[in-house]
Amino acid sequence: MANNDKGRVFGHIPGTTVGQIFKDRAALAKAGIHKPNQAGISGSGKEGADSIVLSGGYEDDEDRGDEIIYTGAGGQDPGTKKQNADQTLDGKNLALARSHLEGYPVRVSRSLKHKDPKSTEKGYEYSGLYKVDDYWQEKGRSGFYVWRYRLIACDEQPIQVAPNEPSNGYTEARRVQTTVQRIVRDTKIAKHVKLLHNYQCQVCGTSLETSAGLYAEAAHIKPLGQPHNGPDVESNILCLCPNHHVLFDNGGFTIDDELKLIGIEGELKTVKKHKIEKKFIQYHREHYQVRS
Amino acid sequence: MANNDKGRVFGHIPGTTVGQIFKDRAALAKAGIHKPNQAGISGSGKEGADSIVLSGGYEDDEDRGDEIIYTGAGGQDPGTKKQNADQTLDGKNLALARSHLEGYPVRVSRSLKHKDPKSTEKGYEYSGLYKVDDYWQEKGRSGFYVWRYRLIACDEQPIQVAPNEPSNGYTEARRVQTTVQRIVRDTKIAKHVKLLHNYQCQVCGTSLETSAGLYAEAAHIKPLGQPHNGPDVESNILCLCPNHHVLFDNGGFTIDDELKLIGIEGELKTVKKHKIEKKFIQYHREHYQVRS
Repeated sequence: MANNDKGRVFGHIPGTTVGQIFKDRAALAKAGIHKPNQAGISGSGKEGADSIVLSGGYEDDEDRGDEIIYTGAGGQDPGTKKQNADQTLDGKNLALARSHLEGYPVRVSRSLKHKDPKSTEKGYEYSGLYKVDDYWQEKGRSGFYVWRYRLIACDEQPIQVAPNEPSNGYTEARRVQTTVQRIVRDTKIAKHVKLLHNYQCQVCGTSLETSAGLYAEAAHIKPLGQPHNGPDVESNILCLCPNHHVLFDNGGFTIDDELKLIGIEGELKTVKKHKIEKKFIQYHREHYQVRS
Repeated sequence: MANNDKGRVFGHIPGTTVGQIFKDRAALAKAGIHKPNQAGISGSGKEGADSIVLSGGYEDDEDRGDEIIYTGAGGQDPGTKKQNADQTLDGKNLALARSHLEGYPVRVSRSLKHKDPKSTEKGYEYSGLYKVDDYWQEKGRSGFYVWRYRLIACDEQPIQVAPNEPSNGYTEARRVQTTVQRIVRDTKIAKHVKLLHNYQCQVCGTSLETSAGLYAEAAHIKPLGQPHNGPDVESNILCLCPNHHVLFDNGGFTIDDELKLIGIEGELKTVKKHKIEKKFIQYHREHYQVRS
């Protein structure tokens, strides 16, 4: 890993193309697409993850093409490859979480066997760049906790180069076109929750005063989208400042059934007209509270 | 406007299609695409803006198709239509800023004359949904301050409907595919600035502790992208918490040449190895500080 730490490259590797086939892991490594010879995740907790390989090794992985639910590393018996312990959020698993937090692109490759279990070929296809959209933990089929990551394909190509500042030698900032899949939220529901709280954060009471008025964010407790499929309803939404939204979505704190905060001091501020359903909070605790 | 306030619709109007031609403003209004008969902006400061019309009336507008630099309303002599006063951030102008802050989609229509000055036709084309990417003020060609908005086309269509929660009658959360243009930032430069500050906000000192490590954001002082074309360099970047990033980008505060904050208490925290160029701060003040 020390080797990988030097010059870890995030994004496409010049000279390679999406859809390119590599005959084995060594060829993938040599091309710079996925450097580790064994591990499914390339990266470190400090730097983030730059690439993964889908090889069909984890029973809990789900691959829908543009959307992948990927399972973290560890907790497997080296012999039987069966889960026999909870996975922990460190090393490679932390690396993927870090890439989520920083918005780094992750190169994804798939073994041909993963793409078609009947395949007798041993090659790997480079599938392009994905973003880590979310990370959480859940009980895998084995009954042990695994870390899970939703990766969403991002398709990028440069379409315009912005002019440089005059004669300054600065790096150019490129403008690219990106195709992303995203959940459409009902802005009316979100707005109503924010109005009920007068745009004050339910954790710290902060209300951001911009020149366009007060600002707060609607945070879903049980997230929208697969596999969580939380509903877009007021009882599943908190009114949070951006800081507490980041913390809530990324294991910084969660909430107990008495609305006391876990992970940070205090308790959730509530208003009568905004009821929060406990089952959503329980879901959040189960999936986002970091167990030591 | 009282009429518009009831049931203001954000997004596409059912029964209309992108590219559809309407013979005049009355027809646009009747279809619900743009309700005001005269005003170029439909909306209120409280609710946000739901639609605009490009009619070629403002000398400072720039239309590049998928990217529009739109000029706010007001400050024009009613007779000559020349700017004779600074525009203010209220009413319709505030509405567009609010749509930026909340991420609301804005319907854009163009007069055929705007599309082709030689055209003798009087119709309007509905061009679809745009997001207000940024708002700022600058001296227009007239020498008076005008408010400016960058609108970026977003192309959306439903591609998948997520399953409902079982038997709950909740609204479905749809998943759509979106094409967005965005600026590619150099993550190495941003990361280096954040490391220099140990992920502590240069305004409040906060460092967000997530399960994936510390979190802070790199905020460009002179923004990337047209028409600002700020460079992606360390001397043009601040390390901010998400709250102060929102405030900095949306007129909540700016910075004077001695690094004292304007709009909120305090002064910018600095470290020796991270130099900030005054010309970028001056640009930010000039464009994002709200003049009363």
